[in-house]
Amino acid sequence: PESKLPALGTTIFTQMSALAQQHNAINLSQGFPDFDGPAYLQERLAYHVSQGANQYAPMIGVAPLREAIAQKTAELYGYQPDVNSEITVTAGATEALYAAITALVRPGDEVICFDPSYDSYAPAVTLAGGIMKRIALQPPGFRVDWAEFTALLSPRTRLVILNTPHNPSATVWQKSDFAQLWEAIAAQEIYVLSDEVYEHICFDEAGHASVLAHPQLRERAIAVSSFGKTFHMTGWKVGYCVAPAALSAEVRKVHQYLTFSVNTPAQLALADMLQQHPEHYRELPEFYRARRDRFVEALSASRFKLLPCEGTYFLLADYSAISDLDDVAFCQWLTKEVGVAAIPLSVFCADAFPHKLIRLCFAKQEATLDAAAERLCQL
Amino acid sequence: PESKLPALGTTIFTQMSALAQQHNAINLSQGFPDFDGPAYLQERLAYHVSQGANQYAPMIGVAPLREAIAQKTAELYGYQPDVNSEITVTAGATEALYAAITALVRPGDEVICFDPSYDSYAPAVTLAGGIMKRIALQPPGFRVDWAEFTALLSPRTRLVILNTPHNPSATVWQKSDFAQLWEAIAAQEIYVLSDEVYEHICFDEAGHASVLAHPQLRERAIAVSSFGKTFHMTGWKVGYCVAPAALSAEVRKVHQYLTFSVNTPAQLALADMLQQHPEHYRELPEFYRARRDRFVEALSASRFKLLPCEGTYFLLADYSAISDLDDVAFCQWLTKEVGVAAIPLSVFCADAFPHKLIRLCFAKQEATLDAAAERLCQL
Ligand SMILES: CSCCC(=O)C(=O)O
Ligand SMILES: CSCCC(=O)C(=O)O
Repeated sequence: PESKLPALGTTIFTQMSALAQQHNAINLSQGFPDFDGPAYLQERLAYHVSQGANQYAPMIGVAPLREAIAQKTAELYGYQPDVNSEITVTAGATEALYAAITALVRPGDEVICFDPSYDSYAPAVTLAGGIMKRIALQPPGFRVDWAEFTALLSPRTRLVILNTPHNPSATVWQKSDFAQLWEAIAAQEIYVLSDEVYEHICFDEAGHASVLAHPQLRERAIAVSSFGKTFHMTGWKVGYCVAPAALSAEVRKVHQYLTFSVNTPAQLALADMLQQHPEHYRELPEFYRARRDRFVEALSASRFKLLPCEGTYFLLADYSAISDLDDVAFCQWLTKEVGVAAIPLSVFCADAFPHKLIRLCFAKQEATLDAAAERLCQL
Repeated sequence: PESKLPALGTTIFTQMSALAQQHNAINLSQGFPDFDGPAYLQERLAYHVSQGANQYAPMIGVAPLREAIAQKTAELYGYQPDVNSEITVTAGATEALYAAITALVRPGDEVICFDPSYDSYAPAVTLAGGIMKRIALQPPGFRVDWAEFTALLSPRTRLVILNTPHNPSATVWQKSDFAQLWEAIAAQEIYVLSDEVYEHICFDEAGHASVLAHPQLRERAIAVSSFGKTFHMTGWKVGYCVAPAALSAEVRKVHQYLTFSVNTPAQLALADMLQQHPEHYRELPEFYRARRDRFVEALSASRFKLLPCEGTYFLLADYSAISDLDDVAFCQWLTKEVGVAAIPLSVFCADAFPHKLIRLCFAKQEATLDAAAERLCQL
């Protein structure tokens, strides 16, 4: 059949993980840990399964998980969302993003996003009949020029999609960015989709600035998060979104017919984990800072130039001293010839992105990071 | 925000289950078992979790599950789909249906479905910009008039959505229905979405007639199934679809950005179950026939007139000898005053459906069915 997404191939993550496997390379491409999540969480899953919690969860998510999310949000961002009307559990953050875009974007609507941008946003906007308006951010800071942003607004602007901590650039938004965003959009009916799946992996003193901490913005925002990243279980596929009741109602209309509900025992196990072990997410910045610092230290002997990593479990490395290849070709060469798989940055950009940057995932065991660094230092 | 699905409320399943809980009624409304799935399946889930199978599954599903699906399909329908290009694992059948509709239906395309129809089809078609063309089937047989079907075809017809065994009517399509369907659409580029989630709950001698058993139709078809119904685990949310490579490629483009992948340990546990205990699905018709017959027998003393149940775990009951209420009002009354929750049939129909029919789910323990029958016999 004629394709509705003709330009679309398999995601770079699937491509690079497959290439890594084929060449037996150390896989620092697709973002997932090579260590396991908490034993307590696993035990709770087995417990709830054995107790017969195996039928449909409520469409909006099981109550204990929504309660735990409300408490965590209040603790971290000073805002407690309503358990019944403002929180929706989804099949990973991916489903929350897709449902939010589908619920809000009408044919002809304009959607602003910041490139490099995660690769699931644009296909969802296209399928909804929306038009992507992209702001190209530049390394190393990847900061938004708010005058440029304001100039891009039009009467058709419907949605702004942002991501902080930002994948792939590893930069984070400050409170001042949110203030500028609000100033720019306040006068118009524009919504905000805030992808915050790395909310607990933020290394700055100031911590993660959530859209939910901004009293005006959160009245227009859908904040999306995920438990896969936080609890080292990317394969469980449980995420959620927080939004005002009227917005949540629209997201739920889509979610209801897109997946209806999410794995019941996994939801109950995550609720136990959040309630019994909040120290897990509180200590996560420290956990990943140690890995980041070890990897950065090990790579200091290499010819890669590393960019600052403020958040996420990704590190950007400039290879211009090593090769003239473009980033896609360099990543293929690196996987095949050096035995380290990484992600090229240009695939996250609609426009040309002529920088020599690759993304390395450091959600890996120390031995994995050391072995990868050793190979990279030989270049 | 302005709603893209303004007419849409909460699904009848969520509504009736909530009402049942509120009034402490026996819940024969939403379709899920009140007994548990196989202990072996639960053990395998705990096993794979403990073995660290907790990171992203491949986007198309884990290999052992796709292999098991291919084998089962070959055994039952004489057609072995290609493991790599024709099978996609999804977050329940609901996601497969949504992804298939989104991949195939373009703005202005017409989609034919048969009312009563499952309530997730139409919102997905509407969000894709398609136009629903409905054929109203009539009780008790709910048979398709193929002349009426052919008359409904137009140059804009893009997709036909069918469901067999059929929820809520409990009727099943014969091979001859598929032959007529093929005859009607062969000359045009029309695709078929065949919702077969109750494929293993079919009571006729002839068994389930799958679209995959029809050599021409299957070249145009996406067949959807689910493990929730088959293994009594509706809350695990693992389904799949089978389609020719070119069609699967389009469905995957959507699936990739809709959920990306499905709970990894649940997929691996289901693969073990299918491979080690194929007798489970082979014996499922017998398992549910016994429940159906017990329930029908118990209700024979009532004033309900029961319709034939050829498949699914639903039984239709005509209450015209008991009440003049419309079916929605009757179901509410039945839940509140009699303590038995059921589903009204009119909610599955776009046009008026002036029949006095309710749907009762018999995927319940014998004690539950007996208790419900006792209450229903007092009317
Ligand atoms: C859904 S696979 C990609 C995982 C991820 O978020 C990343 O690598 O950026
Ligand atoms: C997704 S909840 C509805 C379950 C079901 O398929 C039904 O009751 O018909």
